[in-house]
Amino acid sequence: MTIKPDYIRPIDFKHGRVDMNHGAGGRAGAQLIEELFARAFDNPALRQGDDGAALDMPAGHRLVMAIDGHVISPLEFPGGDIGCLAVHGTVNDVAMMGATPLYLAASFILEEGFALADLKRIVESMAAAARDAGVPIVTGDTKVVEQGKGDGVFIATTGVGALPMGRRIGGAQARPGDVVLVSGTIGDHGVAVLSQRESLEFETQIVSDTAALHGLVAALLAAVPEGAVHTLRDPTRGGLATTLNEIARQCGAGMLLHEADIPVQPQVEAACELLGLDPLYIANEGKLIAIVAPAHAEAALAALRAHPLGRAAARIGVVQDDAHRFVQMATRFGGRRVVDWLSGEPLPRIC
Amino acid sequence: MTIKPDYIRPIDFKHGRVDMNHGAGGRAGAQLIEELFARAFDNPALRQGDDGAALDMPAGHRLVMAIDGHVISPLEFPGGDIGCLAVHGTVNDVAMMGATPLYLAASFILEEGFALADLKRIVESMAAAARDAGVPIVTGDTKVVEQGKGDGVFIATTGVGALPMGRRIGGAQARPGDVVLVSGTIGDHGVAVLSQRESLEFETQIVSDTAALHGLVAALLAAVPEGAVHTLRDPTRGGLATTLNEIARQCGAGMLLHEADIPVQPQVEAACELLGLDPLYIANEGKLIAIVAPAHAEAALAALRAHPLGRAAARIGVVQDDAHRFVQMATRFGGRRVVDWLSGEPLPRIC
Repeated sequence: MTIKPDYIRPIDFKHGRVDMNHGAGGRAGAQLIEELFARAFDNPALRQGDDGAALDMPAGHRLVMAIDGHVISPLEFPGGDIGCLAVHGTVNDVAMMGATPLYLAASFILEEGFALADLKRIVESMAAAARDAGVPIVTGDTKVVEQGKGDGVFIATTGVGALPMGRRIGGAQARPGDVVLVSGTIGDHGVAVLSQRESLEFETQIVSDTAALHGLVAALLAAVPEGAVHTLRDPTRGGLATTLNEIARQCGAGMLLHEADIPVQPQVEAACELLGLDPLYIANEGKLIAIVAPAHAEAALAALRAHPLGRAAARIGVVQDDAHRFVQMATRFGGRRVVDWLSGEPLPRIC
Repeated sequence: MTIKPDYIRPIDFKHGRVDMNHGAGGRAGAQLIEELFARAFDNPALRQGDDGAALDMPAGHRLVMAIDGHVISPLEFPGGDIGCLAVHGTVNDVAMMGATPLYLAASFILEEGFALADLKRIVESMAAAARDAGVPIVTGDTKVVEQGKGDGVFIATTGVGALPMGRRIGGAQARPGDVVLVSGTIGDHGVAVLSQRESLEFETQIVSDTAALHGLVAALLAAVPEGAVHTLRDPTRGGLATTLNEIARQCGAGMLLHEADIPVQPQVEAACELLGLDPLYIANEGKLIAIVAPAHAEAALAALRAHPLGRAAARIGVVQDDAHRFVQMATRFGGRRVVDWLSGEPLPRIC
């Protein structure tokens, strides 16, 4: 089944560029969808060719839904690109609710003049990430904006998943006494992107940690009784510090972290020093925070460490009573300071 | 519950502008979400403040999922704006699968420098549209790109809905003998946007038909036996002609339309003549095509006409055997021509 009459040539994915026709809703757009997106993402729902997808959901579950826009610059960076990132980020948001991610939807906003070779590489990376995660892209949309009104490609992805009835995992569920775990080293993604952007070279290349974490979440949840994990959250934009502040705000308690226990790769620490940045505020794309009832913290930590994506997991602090909901940190030098939200000095377009 | 310490001032929605801080994942972004998006869209799922939403789904249904990116220019046009359009477009895509739209997710890509007053107006229009449709925006995301890398605001919306088990409505379900209905006049949206863009003035102002069609779909489906409606589709980008070609491709049959039966408002017809456009290719945002078993076509048409959004509904043609899957039209002058896909002359950024 093809839309190409004889006089339409195949798309030139070597030298071709996105043009306004690709977004006009006519034949050129249909051809781009057929020869690129539908081919790369191929699955039964997408193959139907309707404007939406009809999907099976397991009985006895609630639905979880999460959306993320991706505008990262540069589009490709050490360890990943906007395509796989758009899959990982959204799969992770669904997984952090305690749900099993099932399906993705993707919206592409393309800039006129963007090289089709670059688009193809990104779409194929996205397709591979979805395949690896076992979460198909079942429906999509493409739009084109004029040159200078976009920036290559933006991708918004929505994920849906199935949440077992009665499971409640969220920021509001954390409570004083809970233990705060992190699944590995922090700051890798942000520093990888920044070093690419600033053309910095380090002795060891720093690569993004971008990864789908639903397998890690499943291993964690299987290792402890239902209800033992109170909060899961991936510390993306704003980093560990901002994410913990968000959770503190949601649950109405404070936190006390131990600086010495927070895992940071030495080369990331060195790069941060050079750049005048604090790894606590740097985005991660393959790490999670788990806030767990104290009785099950050891089992939870062991489960994280037993998984390939959680080998460097650590216990980094506790939730504590605090009407001010401050996130505090016992420093390496024996002092104590408040770890505030990210405020100034933004790191734009990190995801 | 507020994130504002005393030294943070409320956002200035009169004179303020989007800046890169609003997208950095820190306090400024959280404040914008709290004071604008969360306030306008307020509902229990969003209030949880997690990175996703946990939602109830009716038992005995399949899940329908649809996504749309919205990049319309100008952002406001006669009869609507990008905010309400982003709700209507996605609600309609879900409804066209025969599903009841339940929840929306929204991703905003903001351009640095965009006036917060404009953003607020758009977000409030979006909130009103979601409220009127009874489909809440349960989760969202905002990103900011540098000036010159975006165009004010882009909005990607995903809708999910519940599809009764066993219902199959889609392009592939149309079959020879079926009757093709359209729910009203065509071309209104595209001509309204173009006339705004080109600062054209007509005697009568042409306004977009942007509307949520799930109520109309429900009325139609209630009026005929289950299985009588084979295909529903909203003829947006590319217009009626392109949408019918898509369906012809999906179902492997042709169509024969009767030009005289296709409803077009006189002022839209006049504007199209002036602009050298064919209303068949102009986008609609509040119309649907229904392809119905012939025995139930009259009842279906009556149900459409009885609804406020379907008063000008008409029977415009039939599906017919055709190995070439051509959409043909019997013209007003007694001739017959092939109605092809939109190919050249794009109308960019119409939705």
